[in-house]
Amino acid sequence: MRTDFCDLLGIDVPIVGFSPSEHVVAAISRAGGLGVLGAVRFNDASELDDVLTWLDTATGGRPYGVDVVMPSRVPTEGLPDDLSAMVPSGHRDFVERTLLRLGVPPLLAAQDRPGVLGWLHSVARAHIEVALNHPVRLIANALGPPPPDVIEQAHARGLLVAALAGRAEHARSHVTSGVDIVVAQGYEAGGHTGEIAGMVLVPEVVDAVSVPVLAAGGIGSGRQIAAALALGASGVWMGSVWLGTAEYESSPALREALLRATSSDTVRSRIYSGKPARLLRNRWTEAWSAQDAPATLPMPLQNLLVSGAHDRLMASGDPTVVPMPVGQIVGRMNAVRPVAEVMSDLVSEADETLGRLHKLL
Amino acid sequence: MRTDFCDLLGIDVPIVGFSPSEHVVAAISRAGGLGVLGAVRFNDASELDDVLTWLDTATGGRPYGVDVVMPSRVPTEGLPDDLSAMVPSGHRDFVERTLLRLGVPPLLAAQDRPGVLGWLHSVARAHIEVALNHPVRLIANALGPPPPDVIEQAHARGLLVAALAGRAEHARSHVTSGVDIVVAQGYEAGGHTGEIAGMVLVPEVVDAVSVPVLAAGGIGSGRQIAAALALGASGVWMGSVWLGTAEYESSPALREALLRATSSDTVRSRIYSGKPARLLRNRWTEAWSAQDAPATLPMPLQNLLVSGAHDRLMASGDPTVVPMPVGQIVGRMNAVRPVAEVMSDLVSEADETLGRLHKLL
Repeated sequence: MRTDFCDLLGIDVPIVGFSPSEHVVAAISRAGGLGVLGAVRFNDASELDDVLTWLDTATGGRPYGVDVVMPSRVPTEGLPDDLSAMVPSGHRDFVERTLLRLGVPPLLAAQDRPGVLGWLHSVARAHIEVALNHPVRLIANALGPPPPDVIEQAHARGLLVAALAGRAEHARSHVTSGVDIVVAQGYEAGGHTGEIAGMVLVPEVVDAVSVPVLAAGGIGSGRQIAAALALGASGVWMGSVWLGTAEYESSPALREALLRATSSDTVRSRIYSGKPARLLRNRWTEAWSAQDAPATLPMPLQNLLVSGAHDRLMASGDPTVVPMPVGQIVGRMNAVRPVAEVMSDLVSEADETLGRLHKLL
Repeated sequence: MRTDFCDLLGIDVPIVGFSPSEHVVAAISRAGGLGVLGAVRFNDASELDDVLTWLDTATGGRPYGVDVVMPSRVPTEGLPDDLSAMVPSGHRDFVERTLLRLGVPPLLAAQDRPGVLGWLHSVARAHIEVALNHPVRLIANALGPPPPDVIEQAHARGLLVAALAGRAEHARSHVTSGVDIVVAQGYEAGGHTGEIAGMVLVPEVVDAVSVPVLAAGGIGSGRQIAAALALGASGVWMGSVWLGTAEYESSPALREALLRATSSDTVRSRIYSGKPARLLRNRWTEAWSAQDAPATLPMPLQNLLVSGAHDRLMASGDPTVVPMPVGQIVGRMNAVRPVAEVMSDLVSEADETLGRLHKLL
């Protein structure tokens, strides 16, 4: 299975794998796909620099990419302490009350860390500056097109720029801004996502733009890759599936939650970041639908509000409360396997499917 | 493009087309697909009998089917007047107030009709009795498997039984009940629908059951048919697309609303029937999200509450208020065309797609 997209990127199979884990990213690139590192977790850009230095070697010279989050509507900027002061105390009370009710113990003070700041433009720009000093092949942006000067800088260094889109009109405006690749992210996807399902969205985006389109959302098997190619995509963008691989550093509680979840066990909610994102549905997400739950805060305040809670929920060891962005494909994640094995199965099932379809002609 | 499903049904292409319009149904069957008539609108079974008699001739002897609605959880039964008395007056006040606010004039008394009773078991059973006296090839049920005795009767007369499923576990239980064909209906579909998108749902259902699976939801082009076949479906079930055909008797307001709508202009809501169904999003559906809107009533009371309003909204001639179940594929419905032309385009684009995919191997 090869498309023009493979030649454009210098990869063997049209599979782009997004992960916050550099170990997953390296394994995807080594297996012939394009690993893309999620940078949003690096509040300190120098940590990203160290990780990319590691990746430069660990990918064995194969292409890889970096994903940043620059929302097209610029959220509130500021220093962590100033931003934290903007979180209403009633919201903090609700979070504290909920953790108590869910039986989630407090952390030792030493484990405390600030929330995700990577979706501030100031931090995302620092990520991009770091990335431009590494042999990165692709910069992707999750919430709209990167600003024009970022696209110019990337192009000047020979990088490709990708942007996620949940509607055809967004895809069109991305391409007008200079984006080279559109990731059409369907409703079924994990993390930040829109309302249009991939079956409808992908051909709409393909027809709306003249650049390569990757299908994202709901892809976890070779049949789904073949379906994405049938819809006109040049390849696929996969995120959730890697959470279930051996290379992903996971707590036992998270692993159990992911293996146990069916495709019905996700919910699209603003509670993680302030923008709609698909998450594992559990006692924590359900608590935010209760009568006493407050309205969510705008990005980045919502994550500042819940980041301490996220750490406590993760550390609790309770699989029924882990806070985790994941797509509906979580229902197919039923065994922990190495990335290379997942990649090889994806490719052989996709090839089998293309062969089977040809017989229907 | 042929699958085993074509041989099973005695049709030329694996396209099942659902419509409440007998004219659309006849045209689909004549074009080599399987037209399936939605019976829920026939409060009086003898009217269905007349329409099927017409279809027996109009299909030119090609196979066709009938779709009934028997919810697996039996709703409140009763005579129209007794059921109407169960609708709270606060709800009636809200509907009346909303129509006034939307500028929707009252009807002449002569145009009044009762709500949809077809989703009562008593009425649906009358539909099936009528259908069994016609050369119907397939009985489909929209909200679960038909009762065992209905399946037995159908099988005794050589008919096939299909049932819609929005989750793999429902598909499994349908097949255990004796259902011959499962329609995996994704989140993106029009009318009653679940939360799992087709990209994820279809292969889950295919893997869960050993009977043929049709993909429903988001199918409106040959690429989408090819994608459904890639996912493992034996064919497709299409409903929304026929609303935009020349054979569908439509008001100018409805036609304008459908042509104008994008894939973002639908909403999944309980306001039509009491169960979640995807509808055209407009000023009427939005009114039900307002602060003063009451909670929806259970099936069949919700439709009894709104059926008079539906008639007024339709008769108003205002495209911004038409009450209409439709899927996200409405964004692709941009011209009124005869069914035969739509069918021919679907088949040629699907064949082209299968040919294109083969070249990627």
